[in-house]
Amino acid sequence: MDSVLKYLSSNQSRFVDELCTYVRFRSVSAQPQHRPDMQSCADWLVKHCRDIGLQAEARPTDGNPIVIAKTPRKKSSAKRRHFMVYGHYDVQPPEPFDLWKTPPFQPTIRGRSLFARGASDNKGQNLAHLKAVEAYLKTGTALPCDLTFVIEGEEEVGSKSLAGFLQKHRAELACDAVVISDTGIPSQKNPALTYALRGIAAFEIILRGPSRDLHSGIFGGSVENPAMALSRLLAKVHDAKGRIVIPHFYDGVVPLTKYERKQMGRVPFNRNAYRKFLGVPELHGERGFTPDEQRSARPTFEINGLTSGYQGDGSKTIVPSWARAKITSRLVPGQQPAKVIKHIQAFLKKNCPDTVEMEIKSGHGAEAYMVSPTSDDAQAALRALKKAFGHEPVLLREGGSIPIVNQFKKILGADTLLLGLALPDDNAHSPNEKFDLDIFAHGQKLSALLWQELAG
Amino acid sequence: MDSVLKYLSSNQSRFVDELCTYVRFRSVSAQPQHRPDMQSCADWLVKHCRDIGLQAEARPTDGNPIVIAKTPRKKSSAKRRHFMVYGHYDVQPPEPFDLWKTPPFQPTIRGRSLFARGASDNKGQNLAHLKAVEAYLKTGTALPCDLTFVIEGEEEVGSKSLAGFLQKHRAELACDAVVISDTGIPSQKNPALTYALRGIAAFEIILRGPSRDLHSGIFGGSVENPAMALSRLLAKVHDAKGRIVIPHFYDGVVPLTKYERKQMGRVPFNRNAYRKFLGVPELHGERGFTPDEQRSARPTFEINGLTSGYQGDGSKTIVPSWARAKITSRLVPGQQPAKVIKHIQAFLKKNCPDTVEMEIKSGHGAEAYMVSPTSDDAQAALRALKKAFGHEPVLLREGGSIPIVNQFKKILGADTLLLGLALPDDNAHSPNEKFDLDIFAHGQKLSALLWQELAG
Repeated sequence: MDSVLKYLSSNQSRFVDELCTYVRFRSVSAQPQHRPDMQSCADWLVKHCRDIGLQAEARPTDGNPIVIAKTPRKKSSAKRRHFMVYGHYDVQPPEPFDLWKTPPFQPTIRGRSLFARGASDNKGQNLAHLKAVEAYLKTGTALPCDLTFVIEGEEEVGSKSLAGFLQKHRAELACDAVVISDTGIPSQKNPALTYALRGIAAFEIILRGPSRDLHSGIFGGSVENPAMALSRLLAKVHDAKGRIVIPHFYDGVVPLTKYERKQMGRVPFNRNAYRKFLGVPELHGERGFTPDEQRSARPTFEINGLTSGYQGDGSKTIVPSWARAKITSRLVPGQQPAKVIKHIQAFLKKNCPDTVEMEIKSGHGAEAYMVSPTSDDAQAALRALKKAFGHEPVLLREGGSIPIVNQFKKILGADTLLLGLALPDDNAHSPNEKFDLDIFAHGQKLSALLWQELAG
Repeated sequence: MDSVLKYLSSNQSRFVDELCTYVRFRSVSAQPQHRPDMQSCADWLVKHCRDIGLQAEARPTDGNPIVIAKTPRKKSSAKRRHFMVYGHYDVQPPEPFDLWKTPPFQPTIRGRSLFARGASDNKGQNLAHLKAVEAYLKTGTALPCDLTFVIEGEEEVGSKSLAGFLQKHRAELACDAVVISDTGIPSQKNPALTYALRGIAAFEIILRGPSRDLHSGIFGGSVENPAMALSRLLAKVHDAKGRIVIPHFYDGVVPLTKYERKQMGRVPFNRNAYRKFLGVPELHGERGFTPDEQRSARPTFEINGLTSGYQGDGSKTIVPSWARAKITSRLVPGQQPAKVIKHIQAFLKKNCPDTVEMEIKSGHGAEAYMVSPTSDDAQAALRALKKAFGHEPVLLREGGSIPIVNQFKKILGADTLLLGLALPDDNAHSPNEKFDLDIFAHGQKLSALLWQELAG
């Protein structure tokens, strides 16, 4: 192992250059115009994996290609353990561009941070695992287990192709566990194993009023304003305590145990620092829960976008023809996306006035996830974390969604070890996304040590 | 007069061609990129006025030029009456382009309608008056009064330069009354004198939450969503009866008299046809008033545009950093824009949660207008209407705003005769704006006859 770790530490500068190349691809899966960039990024990734010594290829899907890369298998290795490392090469849309200090696809190092869209979510994190394997292969150190990398290009749009792909290649991809680094840690001093994720249900509400934008002087007052109707509808979702009033919304939610609330209390948290970090005048959330509980263990109803009427300079005196809200609900263990959407839909229909027509477009959905932190593999991961970072790890619930974690469980029967490398201020999904280069190095070390611990 | 009317009827085809030329100018005053189009349009208008035989020039302002055109004055005409004809050559933004059947600045005749942005509001209407004067001048018929055309380029953005211009040229522009064709008539069989206009108060509400868009998984639940806060705020404006609950909002509103409600009842109205025309499932407005009263004699609080978060394809899982609503309130006689804005601002401040920061940007404002329909000039106008259209005219209140009507009263002491030529389905401010070519011809005749009636 010494030569592996030495190889890692002596190649950091090149690794950072490679990460820069990786994040230059504009692999924005939500935007159709970036389809060619998705392919270019996948092609680069395949070549990179092959250069490392992996057997790699980009497998076509109905959507973006999935990159599969395997460590060379030994004929005598029938009883070796097999782990999958999952990651994604697609990124969130970079808009709004004008809030980026440096362009999103022009990686820039300031201090010990690399700024670029996808640096942290998820290119930097999956590259760390590739670099660990490279260290084994290039130093001729025997890997104690078999590894298969599955790096997809549709994570930010609901991983539409992956489930079918897993189904189709169940035998090939069967594994003892999946390792994913796509979550966060409180700080470099608090490496973490994440034992629960929130799910998600995405949808759009469109209210249609007049068949065209109307002159607000000539007609205004005698016709419903769809933007106002939408505001009234959305305003009904929460009560004064920040609780969602939609009937059956909380059905099946597994309550937080005393043990969990105690573990979450161990994670360092400073209310004022958190408020300042978000840049808000006051925090806000469901009464009776701490901010960490609100953002990781409680479901939400979140407006991601509002659009209606005139968006340009100056004013345009119209009654808009329609209004739209893009919504995502974060879900917790016990909630099913389809059921939640059904309850939300019923609530919206009941409360929608007859002066407008409502359309609800269902988007992607994913159940929440939870795994026992006392299993052997989880314990192995905790040991690797402690060795790599030099600090006692914490146990976390994570508020974000990794929709396919449930698919790994359902289709492959495999639990997932979530060993995130993102810092709270990495600005994932925001302008000025970054990745900490020290964490990048720690992540490579964690990955290298992990295979030893997992192989036993 | 016969030769004047004959000249008009025998030149309709050329007049329509000239209107086509006029509406081809992309004179969108709200959009800075169209500044050069404003100048080109004003230059064309000056040349056209001169060709007709008027003394014309484009007078520069801090904004867009104002076109002034005068009938040749006779030295012995000291006691002749002097009327101003006001119009505007600027137009509303054409967006959204994809809803236009033919491009907004490519005039197209279908049936007896000319489709183009500005065809009805206001180029077609002010050109009708110019054509009437042309008929007098080209046939050598003596005009019984002096006329000054004032055609400005900032009506759609609040006529910022006009008040100062009127102040500066008070002596030159002093007149007995102002004639404006920029309002509507129920149909060709119901020519109308409009005796009241609504005013307007425009403003924007911006709520700022987190300093950047946040990952809705990592942070959502522990921070206020500005789009949701805005929805809650806007939802508080109306009660269940469609009445605005903002304290003091209705202060000073002059109630509708029985006589007025009776006059408004004379205007033909079919609820179902109106609903279908607007394309809405149901009408909606303040309880206790007819749709015609709601849209012309009652104040409103109208959302013209909503913007927050992600607007593109697919989904982006964020808590948006800010949310904005563009608002206009239509005002009625007795309300002052500044006071109304003050009361709205106080209401919004009181109801805005401390979890976001609120900014209110005041836009343009104008008081409502009302004039007696029994004055000599109004009676003269009613006679001209009857002769030109061959039908008994109706008395109307109009829901739109012509902000400068109050300035004519305040600065020049002149009442305004509102002799609109727009049909209800002319789509002013909407895609597929049009102007009826028969009404165009009737309007020219009305203008020609009007000067005879007004001169007594």
